[in-house]
Amino acid sequence: MSLVTFRQDKTMDFVAVGRLCIDLNANEIHRPMEETMTFTKYVGGSPANICIGMSRLGLQCGFIGKVSDDQMGRFIVQYLDKEGIDTGNVVIDSTGAVTGLAFTEIKSPSDCSILMYRDNVADLKLTAHEVQEELIAKTKIVLISGTALAQSPSREAVIQAVHYAKKHGAVVAFDLDYRPYSWASAEETAIYYNLAAEKSDIIIGTREEFNAMEMFENNPDHSDKVTASKWFDYSARIVIIKHGKEGSIAYGKDGSSNRAKSFPSKVLKTFGAGDSYASAFLYGLLQGWTVEKSMEFGSASASIVISRHSCSDAMPTAAEVAEYIEQCNQNEIKAN
Amino acid sequence: MSLVTFRQDKTMDFVAVGRLCIDLNANEIHRPMEETMTFTKYVGGSPANICIGMSRLGLQCGFIGKVSDDQMGRFIVQYLDKEGIDTGNVVIDSTGAVTGLAFTEIKSPSDCSILMYRDNVADLKLTAHEVQEELIAKTKIVLISGTALAQSPSREAVIQAVHYAKKHGAVVAFDLDYRPYSWASAEETAIYYNLAAEKSDIIIGTREEFNAMEMFENNPDHSDKVTASKWFDYSARIVIIKHGKEGSIAYGKDGSSNRAKSFPSKVLKTFGAGDSYASAFLYGLLQGWTVEKSMEFGSASASIVISRHSCSDAMPTAAEVAEYIEQCNQNEIKAN
Amino acid sequence: MSLVTFRQDKTMDFVAVGRLCIDLNANEIHRPMEETMTFTKYVGGSPANICIGMSRLGLQCGFIGKVSDDQMGRFIVQYLDKEGIDTGNVVIDSTGAVTGLAFTEIKSPSDCSILMYRDNVADLKLTAHEVQEELIAKTKIVLISGTALAQSPSREAVIQAVHYAKKHGAVVAFDLDYRPYSWASAEETAIYYNLAAEKSDIIIGTREEFNAMEMFENNPDHSDKVTASKWFDYSARIVIIKHGKEGSIAYGKDGSSNRAKSFPSKVLKTFGAGDSYASAFLYGLLQGWTVEKSMEFGSASASIVISRHSCSDAMPTAAEVAEYIEQCNQNEIKAN
Amino acid sequence: MSLVTFRQDKTMDFVAVGRLCIDLNANEIHRPMEETMTFTKYVGGSPANICIGMSRLGLQCGFIGKVSDDQMGRFIVQYLDKEGIDTGNVVIDSTGAVTGLAFTEIKSPSDCSILMYRDNVADLKLTAHEVQEELIAKTKIVLISGTALAQSPSREAVIQAVHYAKKHGAVVAFDLDYRPYSWASAEETAIYYNLAAEKSDIIIGTREEFNAMEMFENNPDHSDKVTASKWFDYSARIVIIKHGKEGSIAYGKDGSSNRAKSFPSKVLKTFGAGDSYASAFLYGLLQGWTVEKSMEFGSASASIVISRHSCSDAMPTAAEVAEYIEQCNQNEIKAN
Repeated sequence: MSLVTFRQDKTMDFVAVGRLCIDLNANEIHRPMEETMTFTKYVGGSPANICIGMSRLGLQCGFIGKVSDDQMGRFIVQYLDKEGIDTGNVVIDSTGAVTGLAFTEIKSPSDCSILMYRDNVADLKLTAHEVQEELIAKTKIVLISGTALAQSPSREAVIQAVHYAKKHGAVVAFDLDYRPYSWASAEETAIYYNLAAEKSDIIIGTREEFNAMEMFENNPDHSDKVTASKWFDYSARIVIIKHGKEGSIAYGKDGSSNRAKSFPSKVLKTFGAGDSYASAFLYGLLQGWTVEKSMEFGSASASIVISRHSCSDAMPTAAEVAEYIEQCNQNEIKAN
Repeated sequence: MSLVTFRQDKTMDFVAVGRLCIDLNANEIHRPMEETMTFTKYVGGSPANICIGMSRLGLQCGFIGKVSDDQMGRFIVQYLDKEGIDTGNVVIDSTGAVTGLAFTEIKSPSDCSILMYRDNVADLKLTAHEVQEELIAKTKIVLISGTALAQSPSREAVIQAVHYAKKHGAVVAFDLDYRPYSWASAEETAIYYNLAAEKSDIIIGTREEFNAMEMFENNPDHSDKVTASKWFDYSARIVIIKHGKEGSIAYGKDGSSNRAKSFPSKVLKTFGAGDSYASAFLYGLLQGWTVEKSMEFGSASASIVISRHSCSDAMPTAAEVAEYIEQCNQNEIKAN
Repeated sequence: MSLVTFRQDKTMDFVAVGRLCIDLNANEIHRPMEETMTFTKYVGGSPANICIGMSRLGLQCGFIGKVSDDQMGRFIVQYLDKEGIDTGNVVIDSTGAVTGLAFTEIKSPSDCSILMYRDNVADLKLTAHEVQEELIAKTKIVLISGTALAQSPSREAVIQAVHYAKKHGAVVAFDLDYRPYSWASAEETAIYYNLAAEKSDIIIGTREEFNAMEMFENNPDHSDKVTASKWFDYSARIVIIKHGKEGSIAYGKDGSSNRAKSFPSKVLKTFGAGDSYASAFLYGLLQGWTVEKSMEFGSASASIVISRHSCSDAMPTAAEVAEYIEQCNQNEIKAN
Repeated sequence: MSLVTFRQDKTMDFVAVGRLCIDLNANEIHRPMEETMTFTKYVGGSPANICIGMSRLGLQCGFIGKVSDDQMGRFIVQYLDKEGIDTGNVVIDSTGAVTGLAFTEIKSPSDCSILMYRDNVADLKLTAHEVQEELIAKTKIVLISGTALAQSPSREAVIQAVHYAKKHGAVVAFDLDYRPYSWASAEETAIYYNLAAEKSDIIIGTREEFNAMEMFENNPDHSDKVTASKWFDYSARIVIIKHGKEGSIAYGKDGSSNRAKSFPSKVLKTFGAGDSYASAFLYGLLQGWTVEKSMEFGSASASIVISRHSCSDAMPTAAEVAEYIEQCNQNEIKAN
């Protein structure tokens, strides 16, 4: 029997809740951003990327979020529409908020950084009232993203979305996506991450993100097993802890653990690896695949995305991922 | 005798106080910004543009301002240094502020707009303590820009800069540069604009900007003459009121009034006209030219800048302006 | 078997978390406050009153809260100490916060109002880190008060206190104590009240307070039974809904319901009735009394307190309550 | 000829602008406030006290300020009305602001302190638009109080009131009344105090208050003469610097200087000395008295007020002050 089961009576496969923003990716790379003169615009934000990834993989997807009432906000909605994502619950801000920006600096394939604009952003202004219960009621997986818990009223909108998901039998996936600059304190982070994780079926994060959650816990050695075990006492079925280049490990409520296989890649930049991984992994689970096979699909998708310029627009189709795995198995792809 | 005299014992010709930011100008133009995919980065901000313009015209210039401690801030300082502008009083923010951004949308030569990012910007965090009296003490013209009055502590830094300018005999030029989104209320705007204008020798603004200043005054017909007269009871020597395409009018404390001649231009966008006008006009006064000749020089400089892609990097040299006037006089330049 | 059982291995009977403030009660009464010239100072705040009530009844009590670093804060701590309440977890604020104030206006026994000072108050500045796990670990009942959920960081401190209470097997009592002026929105209120109520064993509130919690629910007739039933699916054992003069009803997880008996009183003012009721009711449960007998004890205590000038200092001993019930049974007490 | 002349065509003698609040004075004195159980309520705030003092002395007075829409605000307006002060420009707040409070602690005649409540206070919410030009137009003296400069929008209201006063020929008296807790920074204080002082005819403050103004000046020895001289280059006619028990010194634009005589007093508390001094001094100037005689009248009034329980309600009539001077001259009053 599967670790996670999905309600087959639901017509929407996947809904993500949270951040919709703009990436401005350096066109002239391998240099400090001071020397970059032009930037290309893409839709960004972790849950947006995952949702675009899921849609590219062929699933029925929707988004719950808020965008600015300006050219940036309109670009985001137009892009999601074009990708076939249901934007009926993407609300237009009316307070003069702006769209969050991420300027990327690519000094080398392994030395990348981001300059964020996160003041007065529309995505954190989504309210609990604006979350549509009827959308969640017909959805198999609701993905929440930690950054959306950082501030009110978005924080309460996420709590309400989780409440509706539990009420209607949706699987709750929680991508920790911890961005310290959005939070008032490490203490607040730990408290709201724990509240959300208690109600989540699938929890995905890096070791550092789980450490941030464990501020009030006793796990001095940062043991993955201790981390995962705690959540199986609540709602969790699968807990995935990511260790960067060392790969990921997925614990199951059934006592299982699986390590992800990794694939070679001609790396352009490191951004987008986690989001493409998450989308392809969840896609696998929805297909009824094993955790192991789903993780492999996730790893392959990540290897594709980090070889491309964007995070969102770079998301592969299922055929592309399958072909990439095949090519790797044939030793046709070499790392740079 | 000149309307304005400059202290010839000063070694610095010109210092601007206020906003330093980044323009991100659409590369794909004649379309809504939603469809623009790449942007080019320039230094921006009205006082920055004027200062760059003055430096290009061959003057000794400095800047008093604050930039973010990130790649954007460093780019700005590097650019000013490269232009030969004294950045000894450009302070690096230590609070996590960002650089203000202006994304430009160029739908047509006459239909241009700007999408601003002005939350938590470094330029408005300059403090009175950070303003260097010794720099102002050796300067002929101190230009203040209205936007820097919008919020504390930048507001107080400007008041202090004006205090030092008066104390040391510098000419105070006040570019109204009114941006409503930076201000708490129209009332506050009027009050601080009046406080600054009372102490200014040269006041430059559009008719709309002067209207904003006159909230508590009685000038129902928005008469330029009434507007200008008020300030001659305080410190003003020249008051310039700009009427867009209808041209500008300069009133003098001696009762004179002059209208600016306009020049044809192959217009790319409307941005930057005012800043290039101001820099070339002040340059003319510093040369000891008449108001009339200085205004002509200003108009020619504006015609050059609006035919180019940026506001700052487009600023012409004195030779370019002179040649442009000559070409216009020969009918060699045609408007588009 | 009892609806609620208390861990007899714990040495502390009761700990309250939340508001500590000052009541300034009008000395000249039966007039508008404009005409009141002198005020008497008392410790106030719903959880403070309940805790003082519990201590008067002879229980071992402690408080988790924060007070201002001034004469008002010191008065509060001195008063609690004098009452024998453990103040080891009453933290002194270091940010310049003030003590909340409540000026009471007593126009008539039934026409009373309060003028609150709740800006920048110390009690809402308690942080999660400051909550002592070891105190909660040795406590039978932890009472949380809704007002402490109104703002960060107090909100997170309460969530953390509940987390410790559940971890260590303390009974969680939740006094809704809804004060709209402390909250950013009705939506936020509903969301955090629900989060807290999900984890509470005993929930006490007025009908209006439960209505505020049910913003996202479907209970159009405001049915008490519907309200109570919801919480029995979570942790609740007893839900008490108060209807002012019409009395209270207590629902039990075992399907029971009990209405409180009421007692006559020579009413001076209406304040303090709920707090004295709560303290005497919880006292009864701790004695192992039935819900019915505990409610009767609560009602008698309330009748005593509303006949006296303060809320806190007026709290009766167990002997006084018992005697009051006896006197009422003998018809020796007449209402005014 | 007088140092200051008043426009005799004006029908209103005196208008104060700024703080209206409540003093809660300890009834049980000579102990720490922790042990004070009851407090008596009075109107308070430096400009309010001065205005009440002027009215008691027989002058036509008005007030420009803002009060909370509650019992405290109504008490203040009722009290001013009763004293015969024009409250036509006392605006009722509509934002939910409260009235500022000052709890006094009187440990001994010389050891007094104040516990202030100044968050979200109505008096700092007066706007420039709410200042009535027609009231100022008919007034001889407009008194502004430094605390009202501490925050927007009250800061701008004061600047506007001064603008109207200058426009209509009123004498501007500036009582520095510096309360650090209301200000964002010492730097802001200095800048706005200087802006206001530049336009003031009479400036009154303690040595410490003038020091705060001189942050950007060069007066290392805190010389009174240097302090006063600066302002005679602007609008000032009289500058009074107070040295507590060592008495005050008044400098005149004519080069004169006068020291105040002091009177014995049976001191109850130190509060209110400065306000009663200011009101009686300005009263003297309005009578056409010399600075010396006006200062004597001020000192006598101060000696009366510090022997009484309140600051406002204690203000003497002109006959009382005259009689007190007479009694002192007869050696009938002894200090405690």
